[in-house]
Amino acid sequence: MMIRVAVLGATGYAGRESIRILLSHPQAQLTHLCALPEECGHVADIFPMFRSRLDLFVEPFDTEKARDLADVVLCCLPHKVSMVFVPPLLAAGLRVIDFSADYRFKLPDDYEQWYETPHKDPANLDQAVYGLPELSREQIRDARLVANPGCYPTGPVLGIAPLLREGLVDPSDIIVDATSGVSGAGRQPKPQHHFPERNESFEAYRIGTHPHLIEIQRCLESLVRGVRTEVLFVPHVAPMDRGILSTIYLRPKQHVSVEHLTAVYAEAYSDEPFIRLREDLPATRDVIFTNFCDITARVVKSRIVVLTAIDNMVKGASGQAIQNMNLMFGIDEKTGLL
Amino acid sequence: MMIRVAVLGATGYAGRESIRILLSHPQAQLTHLCALPEECGHVADIFPMFRSRLDLFVEPFDTEKARDLADVVLCCLPHKVSMVFVPPLLAAGLRVIDFSADYRFKLPDDYEQWYETPHKDPANLDQAVYGLPELSREQIRDARLVANPGCYPTGPVLGIAPLLREGLVDPSDIIVDATSGVSGAGRQPKPQHHFPERNESFEAYRIGTHPHLIEIQRCLESLVRGVRTEVLFVPHVAPMDRGILSTIYLRPKQHVSVEHLTAVYAEAYSDEPFIRLREDLPATRDVIFTNFCDITARVVKSRIVVLTAIDNMVKGASGQAIQNMNLMFGIDEKTGLL
Amino acid sequence: MMIRVAVLGATGYAGRESIRILLSHPQAQLTHLCALPEECGHVADIFPMFRSRLDLFVEPFDTEKARDLADVVLCCLPHKVSMVFVPPLLAAGLRVIDFSADYRFKLPDDYEQWYETPHKDPANLDQAVYGLPELSREQIRDARLVANPGCYPTGPVLGIAPLLREGLVDPSDIIVDATSGVSGAGRQPKPQHHFPERNESFEAYRIGTHPHLIEIQRCLESLVRGVRTEVLFVPHVAPMDRGILSTIYLRPKQHVSVEHLTAVYAEAYSDEPFIRLREDLPATRDVIFTNFCDITARVVKSRIVVLTAIDNMVKGASGQAIQNMNLMFGIDEKTGLL
Amino acid sequence: MMIRVAVLGATGYAGRESIRILLSHPQAQLTHLCALPEECGHVADIFPMFRSRLDLFVEPFDTEKARDLADVVLCCLPHKVSMVFVPPLLAAGLRVIDFSADYRFKLPDDYEQWYETPHKDPANLDQAVYGLPELSREQIRDARLVANPGCYPTGPVLGIAPLLREGLVDPSDIIVDATSGVSGAGRQPKPQHHFPERNESFEAYRIGTHPHLIEIQRCLESLVRGVRTEVLFVPHVAPMDRGILSTIYLRPKQHVSVEHLTAVYAEAYSDEPFIRLREDLPATRDVIFTNFCDITARVVKSRIVVLTAIDNMVKGASGQAIQNMNLMFGIDEKTGLL
Repeated sequence: MMIRVAVLGATGYAGRESIRILLSHPQAQLTHLCALPEECGHVADIFPMFRSRLDLFVEPFDTEKARDLADVVLCCLPHKVSMVFVPPLLAAGLRVIDFSADYRFKLPDDYEQWYETPHKDPANLDQAVYGLPELSREQIRDARLVANPGCYPTGPVLGIAPLLREGLVDPSDIIVDATSGVSGAGRQPKPQHHFPERNESFEAYRIGTHPHLIEIQRCLESLVRGVRTEVLFVPHVAPMDRGILSTIYLRPKQHVSVEHLTAVYAEAYSDEPFIRLREDLPATRDVIFTNFCDITARVVKSRIVVLTAIDNMVKGASGQAIQNMNLMFGIDEKTGLL
Repeated sequence: MMIRVAVLGATGYAGRESIRILLSHPQAQLTHLCALPEECGHVADIFPMFRSRLDLFVEPFDTEKARDLADVVLCCLPHKVSMVFVPPLLAAGLRVIDFSADYRFKLPDDYEQWYETPHKDPANLDQAVYGLPELSREQIRDARLVANPGCYPTGPVLGIAPLLREGLVDPSDIIVDATSGVSGAGRQPKPQHHFPERNESFEAYRIGTHPHLIEIQRCLESLVRGVRTEVLFVPHVAPMDRGILSTIYLRPKQHVSVEHLTAVYAEAYSDEPFIRLREDLPATRDVIFTNFCDITARVVKSRIVVLTAIDNMVKGASGQAIQNMNLMFGIDEKTGLL
Repeated sequence: MMIRVAVLGATGYAGRESIRILLSHPQAQLTHLCALPEECGHVADIFPMFRSRLDLFVEPFDTEKARDLADVVLCCLPHKVSMVFVPPLLAAGLRVIDFSADYRFKLPDDYEQWYETPHKDPANLDQAVYGLPELSREQIRDARLVANPGCYPTGPVLGIAPLLREGLVDPSDIIVDATSGVSGAGRQPKPQHHFPERNESFEAYRIGTHPHLIEIQRCLESLVRGVRTEVLFVPHVAPMDRGILSTIYLRPKQHVSVEHLTAVYAEAYSDEPFIRLREDLPATRDVIFTNFCDITARVVKSRIVVLTAIDNMVKGASGQAIQNMNLMFGIDEKTGLL
Repeated sequence: MMIRVAVLGATGYAGRESIRILLSHPQAQLTHLCALPEECGHVADIFPMFRSRLDLFVEPFDTEKARDLADVVLCCLPHKVSMVFVPPLLAAGLRVIDFSADYRFKLPDDYEQWYETPHKDPANLDQAVYGLPELSREQIRDARLVANPGCYPTGPVLGIAPLLREGLVDPSDIIVDATSGVSGAGRQPKPQHHFPERNESFEAYRIGTHPHLIEIQRCLESLVRGVRTEVLFVPHVAPMDRGILSTIYLRPKQHVSVEHLTAVYAEAYSDEPFIRLREDLPATRDVIFTNFCDITARVVKSRIVVLTAIDNMVKGASGQAIQNMNLMFGIDEKTGLL
């Protein structure tokens, strides 16, 4: 079986990375690439790295063409734009993996508060499945609409979930301090990411206002219903292309050893193909260009410190989407990703 | 007046940076550079950046020569080595600014526990003054031996001190999450700092075991005697040369507004030449190659988040040492640093 | 004496660097900063690195105000814009150091061909002095209008001139292969200099069409009149902030030894404060944040290879301008630069 | 068919990169990894990026074990060491792809002059095939010993060969100016590649003495026998991990247009899967992590300027080796590489 894949929003970094991975996916075929009319053209002119590898034009979007050419759409559009394009895709019978935040929340209120805009497609929120396979594998298999997680939430949620479910940590005192490479900011040039500004600089941004805060919090709350969860999330940006390291500060409910934590993780993740439990500390260099999430925990003074590392473009975006796609089409989850 | 300055340990990064700053200091003159015999040679052969700027040889150390040629010694030796070289310097009547950790603790026990070695010069611990001018300006003026602070403690201590003194924050729940450029690891090549390993990677290290943890904690305890203080310190390294950003998580004792925090900082630091209070978030790019410490605070959920940025080589090492030197010799504290 | 300095075009990188250097210049005072109306504001809001160091507003340009407040204008405007602003400055009696290409050519034809626009101020070309102090120190002293050299030409011209004047090399077979840091492309964000595009990439650009080609050629021709000179210039960009290394391929007219070349350079430059002749190979790390030009030569097979290194923002722009300013106002050429 | 592959010298960068590529090669299986005894251990402890991907120990070398476990050996040993290990491998009936320079020259004299050591295995030089598939595909198919090309020669030889064979350029006036990422210097930490030294610096090295000069020259001479060829080669290093851009200066024998050059390249390379002819200028970002060589030519003044870009670790080392391996074992040359 060949899965026919359309990429909507093909000219951004998430689109580019999806194309890159799919080019060596043995059971998927890129059939249709779309973008805004002014960004269209041959994919090799837009991304010279694909020259001689992919002979497709990026075209303006056309639902009928998508329906004819594709089984699934990777919707790599920005927040607030996806919810306009997704309903007709679903109506046309296509399966959709959406990279934006538009379908990640069950409650439109969360979305509207943190993204500061009314939700235009609340009807489809119900059927949307949050696409973190390690937590929701079965629902993803049957989903017609998958909301691919944000780049920052993936690592922390995977790192915190086992401890929270075991009742080991206080859900009301969680600090997620994370650092990302610059590709996370998208392909559009911005003054703060101009090379001479970004290179040789390190800084925090959107402290307490980045909407991945509420995304992490809602994910964790869904794991232990009825318990008040509080997450403080502070993102930083480092002068590198890819990778997210999250340093997570948790308060244990009672004394706990690192051996116990290790056992909890091992039980939770022993069968997971893309989670690697490490004894030494993770570094982004070991996960970039892979779909792995590396996890380590330490007990220090009165805290548990959990560290997670992913590639923001792979496990934090396109790799995870393709892992979801593999599940949705019943093929080996690892296909094209190892 | 010209202050005659010797640099002991002139071939490392702290030595190099001290030389760099002193070359444009109008009231100081480099008269004597020392290092291990196998590292000696003309300073311009060791550091080509100084060619045609400084015609001195780095020589093996000789107390008598130091006494004849210098008024003050910047002792840029490693931890555990300084305490062997400092006693004869003091005995020779020289004033000493020591960059190592050897004289930063009042109690030899702290040193011995965290640096895992017996202290060889406990007799001089008493007279040593911790060289953070914003906290101990008057004692520094009269000091014969200044213990220059570690690179990591400087920013967090300056960022936390005013809030702690005002009783605004819980001293037993302090998290310091900090990120440094690679020069902080010294000039000696190491596998993890080999360019292709360090570039494009971000990671934490020495979680809970880095001795700057206890240095920060002891500094803060000295400000509010009799109160139990607990600091959790997690250092990270980013692919850049210079700079430290510290993201500090504090728990307010009662509700507090960012305006109130701002007022507290303004009162504490309004006359400080090297502290800049910022409304926007600090970035290391704005402080590198300067002696400034930029500070911003935010109130988020149940936390205060304080951010501080310094250049680890300047305010975190050589710049601060020269600020201390200026104070010790009664000249304008800013000389050579602005 | 304090030289009162205005900076026109203060919001770009050349403006920022001029401010940075002048802040520690003991005989110059920044009195007036100007930019386009939409870019105006407090200098510390535009460049947070200057917070607490300079309390000036960047204002829209006003000739009368400039005349009242300044003795000299550093005109950091783009090519094609300078020639509109410079004539009224000169008419107001101000001395001008212009960073653009607008006054670098004696013949309007060169300018018009390479910059593809008519020259709007040919009348002032005659009095403009090309501001390379090592070649034209005396004319610079008396100049009212100095055309500050381009960033790329400075190193190659200094590296080639002594050999060409001695008749050692064939003027018709000169290749200049140069690599610059990204600050040379200016402060305006551009897709190709967006961090994730520029980092981890190296490339050539504007091969044979970069107008610094003709600037180098005309400079060299002025040294040996009546001889046909041909320069092939290929610029590259590397993922770093600052610095230009030029690798220059020359053909000796007859057999020559590296010792002879060294002697020629030594004679040409022995009194030059900002030229350093090196035996080992120059690297940009040794010159960044300085006004030095490091030069080395090698004889290989049938070629002479000359290497020069400068900081494109200092000796390649603002440092050289301030060196010129010092000469124009009769103070020590090195003031503020060492 | 599964090709069983041993990697000798598995702990260096060439070994690591070979492992990385082979992990997703559908017709090859890593069966045996070897290194010096003191560097042995589980591959995931040596390279954490391979954790959970490859469960092999790096072991001390043993010819019998290699013979039992492998069909081919990728010999990633340093120059001068390979020629000690290769003879027994060949004697054991194994096919060998050697990454060192030890078998790249037909004449021991060249090797001995440029590598300054006697050749210890001249007997096998005759059968060694220089492994550049675009030039010697048929001989590679039958080879028992392939000498994998150096990282620098690959691009320039591919860029120059078609023009030289057509007699378009003067073989006695060839300048190759090339810039490499730092991984080319190997995994062993060195002072000049310590992050704070290498970052933010650009420099040339080994001007006229780098042995890739003679390797390029001998390759080109083998294409047009009986003609004197002279290559001047100057390598540079840029602050990035991967990639080589070569800027090649050629002198046309008579007037030539860029269209003509394009046609010559198209004819030479139209069927080549890993050569991409580009109209715009190549950049290393477009080829890193791929086995492509991008080529562009320009005609400027009296010169042809050819630009080539490769990933030094892929087409410049491990990718090319695996392309050679595929040919040697009769499978599709592109397997595992696209």
